[in-house]
Parts: sequence; structure tokens; C-alpha cells
Amino acid sequence: MATTRQLQLTVRYAETDAQGIVHHANYLVWFEEGRSDYLRQIDLNYTRFEKSGYFVVVADASVRYRAPAYYEDLVTIETTLEQAKGKTLKFSYRALRDTVLLAEGSTVHVVLGGPERRPTTLPDSLRKALVDS
Amino acid sequence: MATTRQLQLTVRYAETDAQGIVHHANYLVWFEEGRSDYLRQIDLNYTRFEKSGYFVVVADASVRYRAPAYYEDLVTIETTLEQAKGKTLKFSYRALRDTVLLAEGSTVHVVLGGPERRPTTLPDSLRKALVDS
Amino acid sequence: MATTRQLQLTVRYAETDAQGIVHHANYLVWFEEGRSDYLRQIDLNYTRFEKSGYFVVVADASVRYRAPAYYEDLVTIETTLEQAKGKTLKFSYRALRDTVLLAEGSTVHVVLGGPERRPTTLPDSLRKALVDS
Amino acid sequence: MATTRQLQLTVRYAETDAQGIVHHANYLVWFEEGRSDYLRQIDLNYTRFEKSGYFVVVADASVRYRAPAYYEDLVTIETTLEQAKGKTLKFSYRALRDTVLLAEGSTVHVVLGGPERRPTTLPDSLRKALVDS
Repeated sequence: MATTRQLQLTVRYAETDAQGIVHHANYLVWFEEGRSDYLRQIDLNYTRFEKSGYFVVVADASVRYRAPAYYEDLVTIETTLEQAKGKTLKFSYRALRDTVLLAEGSTVHVVLGGPERRPTTLPDSLRKALVDS
Repeated sequence: MATTRQLQLTVRYAETDAQGIVHHANYLVWFEEGRSDYLRQIDLNYTRFEKSGYFVVVADASVRYRAPAYYEDLVTIETTLEQAKGKTLKFSYRALRDTVLLAEGSTVHVVLGGPERRPTTLPDSLRKALVDS
Repeated sequence: MATTRQLQLTVRYAETDAQGIVHHANYLVWFEEGRSDYLRQIDLNYTRFEKSGYFVVVADASVRYRAPAYYEDLVTIETTLEQAKGKTLKFSYRALRDTVLLAEGSTVHVVLGGPERRPTTLPDSLRKALVDS
Repeated sequence: MATTRQLQLTVRYAETDAQGIVHHANYLVWFEEGRSDYLRQIDLNYTRFEKSGYFVVVADASVRYRAPAYYEDLVTIETTLEQAKGKTLKFSYRALRDTVLLAEGSTVHVVLGGPERRPTTLPDSLRKALVDS
């Protein structure tokens, strides 16, 4: 557990706001892409996972903003799997421009399954892929 | 045909960009909400429509930008149904701040249905609701 | 202190994601609009405030997601000013569909001013408007 | 003139909508990033350009949607400079997943300069960089 993986992105013009900096809601989108890329890197294709009837929904998210990011900045998203047990997953994130910490945060996720999409224990395929990552 | 209906909105901070004005992609979102509201006003609930297995997808969109919009501006979206026949719908739009034309545009939509979501003639429920609007 | 004010919004199609529900990052945008509307209701026009050289930036944000929201849902954002002292402001939020709690959260803000946009004690005009609200 | 340059991107979850496909407004964001990357490739740093007091605003945009894009799709944006003369620039775009054309479109831009940000003839630094690209 506690493996960290990295995703790089370039700040889009549409992500800036009238303060001339990246709008704060975009960090949740970046963290989600860090998480998506983490899952792709361990060969856990989320698209196939959803097609098999499971969904992972966000239960909790928090961000601490440390320094502004600007249009065209090259940003690294570091994603760490902190916990995967029972019905929940927890990830933490750091967004960096070179060595400057732009923001850090965490998300908690609940696995939903079945016809009524109720909270469900992590299916084995997901748990194994995560634990072995 | 050619009825026009109005929706009002207040510009969100997240809709601005580093030029200090509304980012140009947001007008397509506003036009979509103008269209959604138009359908709600004629009692054509799009949510129920989708649940019955039909989807309306955007085939074509164009916008001409006339004047910038700013955070907190009160904007009126005027939506006009221009055409509803065969498999396609056409709407036109104007975005105004008081009497200032901010942008105008149009969209063309195709109705999809069936298990493979292929282009389909407008179902009667939709066509009647639109023609009588 | 601890006055609560309400903003109503209708869920936009563009705010939904492939799970068929509102994407979680949009709650930060909604909370921001709750906050903007709160300030407008107490006659604290943020646009004028920014033009006088002060900026309020988000330092911290957190959201707990309770129930999914869907396209066309009518959502109420309840915004509460929790604290306004020194260089920081704190707001809390609840998003509701009728009596269903969709999400709750909070944000902490720092006031920036001066040519280098450094953290600054709340200017009197802002502090008074907030304390008297 | 008419050089074409390519940008690759992976579809983000936040870019999908309740139809399970990429929301149509995002193509304008992708085209903008194709354009930004085009300018970076010819060493025309738009950030520096804006700092020197010039802005390029979108005057016109159109998109024809050909096939849906899905979460995690690898998309190539092909950007072509079609025209750069007087006060305007014109670009065209194609979005592809492998050989599948997802969408194509074009944008027209006007150069603004001076204290009142009025339409201005392309400054030499910009014109040369573009013509020689």
C-alpha cells in the first residue's frame, strides 16, 4: 500500500479564472485524473469495471491550496493510494510545479454495486489489483 | 414554430478566464440550458424523454461572439425553435445583457433511438409537443 | 455572525457525468456561487472589491457528499458565514434538494492586497459589511 | 501557411455527461488547447504575448460533431492555421480517435490591443512568428 504514481498535465486556458490563476474547483478534476491514471497504470481499467456493474463514488474530498497555478504551467499530480478495505478507498494527492507545492488533498470513495447501487464490499478483482499495486 | 423563450442567469466566477471575461466555451453550456428550459416550459421533460430510450445529440453548433460578459452580469438567453422535422431539430440563440448582444448562435440536433442509438424520426410525443409549443 | 442565506439553482446537463449524476467538482462551483450571492445580498459587491485591489483566495475547501444530484434537480445552496477575523474568512455550505441533503462543506479564504498580493488584514469596508450582515 | 500540428489528450471523467459521452462544449476547450500548443510549438508564447498588452479573443466558433468520444479515449487534436492577416486569425481543427473523426471545427480570432483593447492589426512579432511557422 501507499504506492505513489505521477501524472503530468499542462494548465488549460479554460481552467483559469478572472484572478488570472487556476480556478480552485479544477484541482478536484486533476486529482480525479491522477486517480484514473493510477488505476490505468496498475491495469485496473475503470471503464471495464463500470461496465461490470460497479461504481466508485466520491464520498469526501478536501483540498488545501498552497500556491497559485497559471496558464501553461506544467503540473505534476502525485497520487497515493492510502487505504483500500471494506467498502472504501482513500487516496491522497499533491499538485506540484517543479518543486513548488500548489495544492494537496485527499478523497474517500465508496464502492456501489447491485441493481440499487448500494455500498458494497470491494469486489475481489478490484481489491487484488489495488493491494498488489 | 419559431417561438422564443427566455432564461436568465448570473455569470459565475468559475465561468470567467484569465482575460477577465466569460470563457467562450460556456456559451454552449448556456445555450443548452436555454434549450432545456425551453423544453421544460412546453412541458417536454427531457429527463423522462431520455428514460423512454430516446436521446437528442448535438450534431452542429456555432457561436458568434459580439461583446464580452463579466462576472456577476445578469444574462438573458433567448432560445428559438427554428425547425423540427424528420430526424433533426434546429434551435437558435441570443445571449444579452440588457440590450447588449453578447453572442448569438445555433445548434442542430439529431434524435437517436433503439438499442443501437441510431438516428430516428422524431417520436410523436416529442414532435407534437414541439409543434404545438 | 452565522447568518445563513440561500441561493437556488437548476442542475445543468453539462454538470452531469457518465455516472448520470452531478460531477463532484461542481459542488465547489455551487458553493462559490452561494458565497457570491451571500455577498451580493449584504451589498458587498465582490467585483467592486476586486477593482479596489483586494482579492479573496480560497485556502482550503472540503466537501462531504451525501446523496447524488441529477439533471434538472432544483437545488438550494445554504451559505453560512462562520468566521471573519484577521486575514481569513470561513464559510460553510449545505446543498439540498427539498429536504434531501446532497452535500455539505466548508471553505477558508485569505484576503490578499497590495502590489504583491500578500495576505492582508480584512479592509474595514469588507469587515464591517460582513460583521453587520 | 496551413501548417498542421497535433496535440494528444486523454478524455477526463469530468468531461463526460449523463449520455455517457464527452459533453459537446468540451470540444471548444480541446480546440483551444490545440491552438495553444500550436503557438507553443512555433515558440509564440501566448502568456508573454498577453503580458505585452495584446489579447486574442474568439470572434466565431463552429463545431460539427461526427462520432461520440468516451472516458479514457486517447484523442488527437489536429490544428491548422488557415489565415493570419489584418486583425484576424483563423484556425481549423479535427479531433480524432485513431482514424475515427470525432469532430471538426474552426475559430476566428481578433487581436485586441491598447488601453481600451480595441481591434488592432497583428503586431509584427506575432505575424512573423505565424507566417514563418
